[in-house]
Amino acid sequence: MIYQEIDTKINYSRENLHWNAWGAIDQDFFHISKIQHILEYLSTTLEMSSLPNTPSVEIEDLKIPKSKITPSDKRAIVAKLNPHGNKKVINSRHEIVLHSVGRSYYDVIRLRTNKIKNFVDLVIYPHNLKDIEQVLKWAMLKKIAIVPFGGGSSVVGGLEAIKTKGQKAVISLDLTRLDKLIEINETDRTATFEAGIYGPKLEQALNAKGYTLGHFPQSFEYSTLGGWVAARSAGQQSNKYGSIETLVANLEIITPAGVIKSLDFNHIANGPDTNQIFTGSEGLLGIITQVKVKVSRLPKERTYFAFMVESFLLGCELVKNISQNNIPVSMARLSDEAETIQFETLASLGKDTSKVKSIIQDLVLKKKNLYHSRCLLIIGLEGDKHITAFHKKSIQFLAKTYGALYLGEKAGKNWLKGRFNMPFLRNHLLDYGIAVDTLETSCNYSKAKIVHKEVVQALKKATGGTVLCHLSHSYHDGACLYFTVIYEMDLKNPIKQWQKLKKDASDVLIKNGVSMSHHHGIGVDHKPWYQKQLSPALLKSLKQIKKTLDVKNIMNPGKLFD
Amino acid sequence: MIYQEIDTKINYSRENLHWNAWGAIDQDFFHISKIQHILEYLSTTLEMSSLPNTPSVEIEDLKIPKSKITPSDKRAIVAKLNPHGNKKVINSRHEIVLHSVGRSYYDVIRLRTNKIKNFVDLVIYPHNLKDIEQVLKWAMLKKIAIVPFGGGSSVVGGLEAIKTKGQKAVISLDLTRLDKLIEINETDRTATFEAGIYGPKLEQALNAKGYTLGHFPQSFEYSTLGGWVAARSAGQQSNKYGSIETLVANLEIITPAGVIKSLDFNHIANGPDTNQIFTGSEGLLGIITQVKVKVSRLPKERTYFAFMVESFLLGCELVKNISQNNIPVSMARLSDEAETIQFETLASLGKDTSKVKSIIQDLVLKKKNLYHSRCLLIIGLEGDKHITAFHKKSIQFLAKTYGALYLGEKAGKNWLKGRFNMPFLRNHLLDYGIAVDTLETSCNYSKAKIVHKEVVQALKKATGGTVLCHLSHSYHDGACLYFTVIYEMDLKNPIKQWQKLKKDASDVLIKNGVSMSHHHGIGVDHKPWYQKQLSPALLKSLKQIKKTLDVKNIMNPGKLFD
Repeated sequence: MIYQEIDTKINYSRENLHWNAWGAIDQDFFHISKIQHILEYLSTTLEMSSLPNTPSVEIEDLKIPKSKITPSDKRAIVAKLNPHGNKKVINSRHEIVLHSVGRSYYDVIRLRTNKIKNFVDLVIYPHNLKDIEQVLKWAMLKKIAIVPFGGGSSVVGGLEAIKTKGQKAVISLDLTRLDKLIEINETDRTATFEAGIYGPKLEQALNAKGYTLGHFPQSFEYSTLGGWVAARSAGQQSNKYGSIETLVANLEIITPAGVIKSLDFNHIANGPDTNQIFTGSEGLLGIITQVKVKVSRLPKERTYFAFMVESFLLGCELVKNISQNNIPVSMARLSDEAETIQFETLASLGKDTSKVKSIIQDLVLKKKNLYHSRCLLIIGLEGDKHITAFHKKSIQFLAKTYGALYLGEKAGKNWLKGRFNMPFLRNHLLDYGIAVDTLETSCNYSKAKIVHKEVVQALKKATGGTVLCHLSHSYHDGACLYFTVIYEMDLKNPIKQWQKLKKDASDVLIKNGVSMSHHHGIGVDHKPWYQKQLSPALLKSLKQIKKTLDVKNIMNPGKLFD
Repeated sequence: MIYQEIDTKINYSRENLHWNAWGAIDQDFFHISKIQHILEYLSTTLEMSSLPNTPSVEIEDLKIPKSKITPSDKRAIVAKLNPHGNKKVINSRHEIVLHSVGRSYYDVIRLRTNKIKNFVDLVIYPHNLKDIEQVLKWAMLKKIAIVPFGGGSSVVGGLEAIKTKGQKAVISLDLTRLDKLIEINETDRTATFEAGIYGPKLEQALNAKGYTLGHFPQSFEYSTLGGWVAARSAGQQSNKYGSIETLVANLEIITPAGVIKSLDFNHIANGPDTNQIFTGSEGLLGIITQVKVKVSRLPKERTYFAFMVESFLLGCELVKNISQNNIPVSMARLSDEAETIQFETLASLGKDTSKVKSIIQDLVLKKKNLYHSRCLLIIGLEGDKHITAFHKKSIQFLAKTYGALYLGEKAGKNWLKGRFNMPFLRNHLLDYGIAVDTLETSCNYSKAKIVHKEVVQALKKATGGTVLCHLSHSYHDGACLYFTVIYEMDLKNPIKQWQKLKKDASDVLIKNGVSMSHHHGIGVDHKPWYQKQLSPALLKSLKQIKKTLDVKNIMNPGKLFD
């Protein structure tokens, strides 16, 4: 049994991965006719006078500087790696490009317009821990920076090929060949994996024994366990299963100063919780090589259902109430008014509009208050049938008190089906001058209203585009707000245009004292704001940890607190 | 309404606190006739030939060295403190003794036998943050070590008056005058307190508004919020409410390198979770001055009920099953066979034994398997009535599959009533040559059997005493095992005798790779083993954080990772 219809057949061979777009070349969920409708709709909404043709440059056009790794340096490291292992040391154009940036809009638009300046000089796929230790030694000796690479899905510049003063080259250390299941402990409900394993393979191994990690970030298909831990990832079902920092039971990390392994069990009062130093360390302290995670039995029942509530703020109240009453939902995903309309429209594109109209009329007949303003709330429950049924009743009861309209399971099922697909839509839009970017923050409930309002305003003002938002992860005391901005690309300077939206939105976040990220991380893109938010003594402490573990600063320099 | 019948009338005036025993002088839960019965029972069990008289020395007998703080140093700091505030700077004998050690058996026996060598030289009660900053500056300038002091309930030597090389004196910084509620945020369900507030006052402030923190360690009446955070405390109901590290929303900490304040909301992907560096830092990095905690609505229903299961291992299986099935119990407390018998006997002392016998016979009639071996399991549920009822049913169903016998609510209620009292019993036993010590660890379920067996063996062998154990806090992947050892004191050298039991038990813990503590902490007593368990690079990193925040090493030197 495969949980949540995961695609376990993705071809991850490097040639099959887009060098300038999301995902695998042979995987696309958008039919050309659907794209056509979407383009028409968006260009009208954005009041674009025409749909420009904005193709990417070809990979051959990219100006890639000559590798700074000399043939003798390369020979030196090849000689040190396991001769019998499936290691690889390569600097083909496709590999170099694929490993030099992540998959944010900023990354992709720079690739497509030939604006990337820094490329890695070599890509190394280690076979095992010893290989990694050899690479670290070699890099220290030769003054080479290392960018650890999992799935390559960073959207905050976490993979930028930066070298620091005195360093002559940067390499990418691709960890995807460390992808073995080491052990499932059915007594403790834990599983230990090598950290380079991709999401689908990890779930497949667990599902085969009746377990799941329950960690499904949108990048799930193209990200790895080690990447999740390094970036402090949160899955779409984290309400139930927990964010990755709560799923990590222990860690093994190879630092330039030696291997660090945490205790087997982490509910302890043994000084600071050092697992929480490495979770979120974004490659700056060492290479995460092995992770023991908590796993759960595959749920017997999985029900995703939807409500319509009158306003985003009312919906936030409802979600807050669900969280604070400890109703163990796996997900509570609330779209704001703009995102709800967008969803309705996208769903209706190309369909008989009179039929869609009548559905909306039905809605209005039932609840007049939802005609002018409505927000879609999708709730998930996973577990034993009598338990999910019990909680569903509580939620329906609660929702009623907020005047919410129960919509049944269809919207929930549709969401589940398409939950990893949205990044593929961007691949198409960029060909027609339409930009899409996302950003997210997390804050206390008491700040949600002002943060929502001001981020939407800032993004609209910076881009003239459409801004959508949803509350994606909720806690006892606050939630994650996830924003999508769709706008007409400034063809003369799309990068400057993006930089402005990033700056303006980030300024709003720190003005309100809320986080620079709930689950995307910091990388290069959020670094200036993140560092401003840290007490100086704390920033200094983090730098000292790096100095202790990585005296030559070879580990992913220039990001986060470096 | 006061939750859980908390005693909010405790007189914390320093003269009213025992200098050489647990708690307040005017608070005792053990009637003399009850004590008499207990002494008879224990001396018989321990095969003691007689009950020796082992009174404590008088406080006047203690050899306290002359304070190393010169009158002019003292004048200098007094002049810097808020002239209008309720600060206090004092070196009376009672204050000095009270602030120089914690409340472990090792601490108390050293006090009673006049074996404490290190005393603090001065006690300062700051009035506010500015006072604390002044004290830090003064201490750095004058080369004085600072031991932060909350409730003084450390049982691992966390308060030992240690100075390090080049330091001339040690002071105790008593934070209990920083005890104000700053804000309750009812939207976010958080509350911000000054960190020196005692447990009962904190709960009283929350209860008045309908909330609870739900954090009830056994030391609850004599410990403070800041102490809980510094020591990474866990309350008896942590299964539901979480250990203190999950209850902390944000922190303010004054370090010698400046004030550190974390973001308002902590579900974030902003690099390492630095709250988790300070939670558990045991005073080595700075003074925790303010804490924002998550609070819950006072539960409408609170039900504690009990089962009898055939063996500790079977009971562990049942508790594991409850945790892994996410049944949200507030507590699952499982006594092993020895502790169960002890409980039964203590409860029956001084009562009509034929009546007690008949109760046990009833039991046997119902379940023959429980005659020779039985373990008491107390389960708590807190929340709305229909929800606790729902979960109680699930638990009863589950318990049946393990052959457990439902005992009703009486044992649960009794446990609740006496849950803070056990340390008071020790006060009496020490007068009659009977020693009591406790220690705890946490480990994966798969290691529980061997750890239980080997720790019991080690403690029995080291002391010839009775060893009891219970599983006190349970998680998805493991649990806390809490051991109590009761033994005949070696009157010639009770300290050496204790050191042996501590060493032997600790050796068993690290041999099995399990934690040195689940919620007591490290302090001085566990330091050698803790440091052995840390990867060298990690230990070095922690030391570097200390060096960065506390360059002169004035903050609680000599403990944990220092």
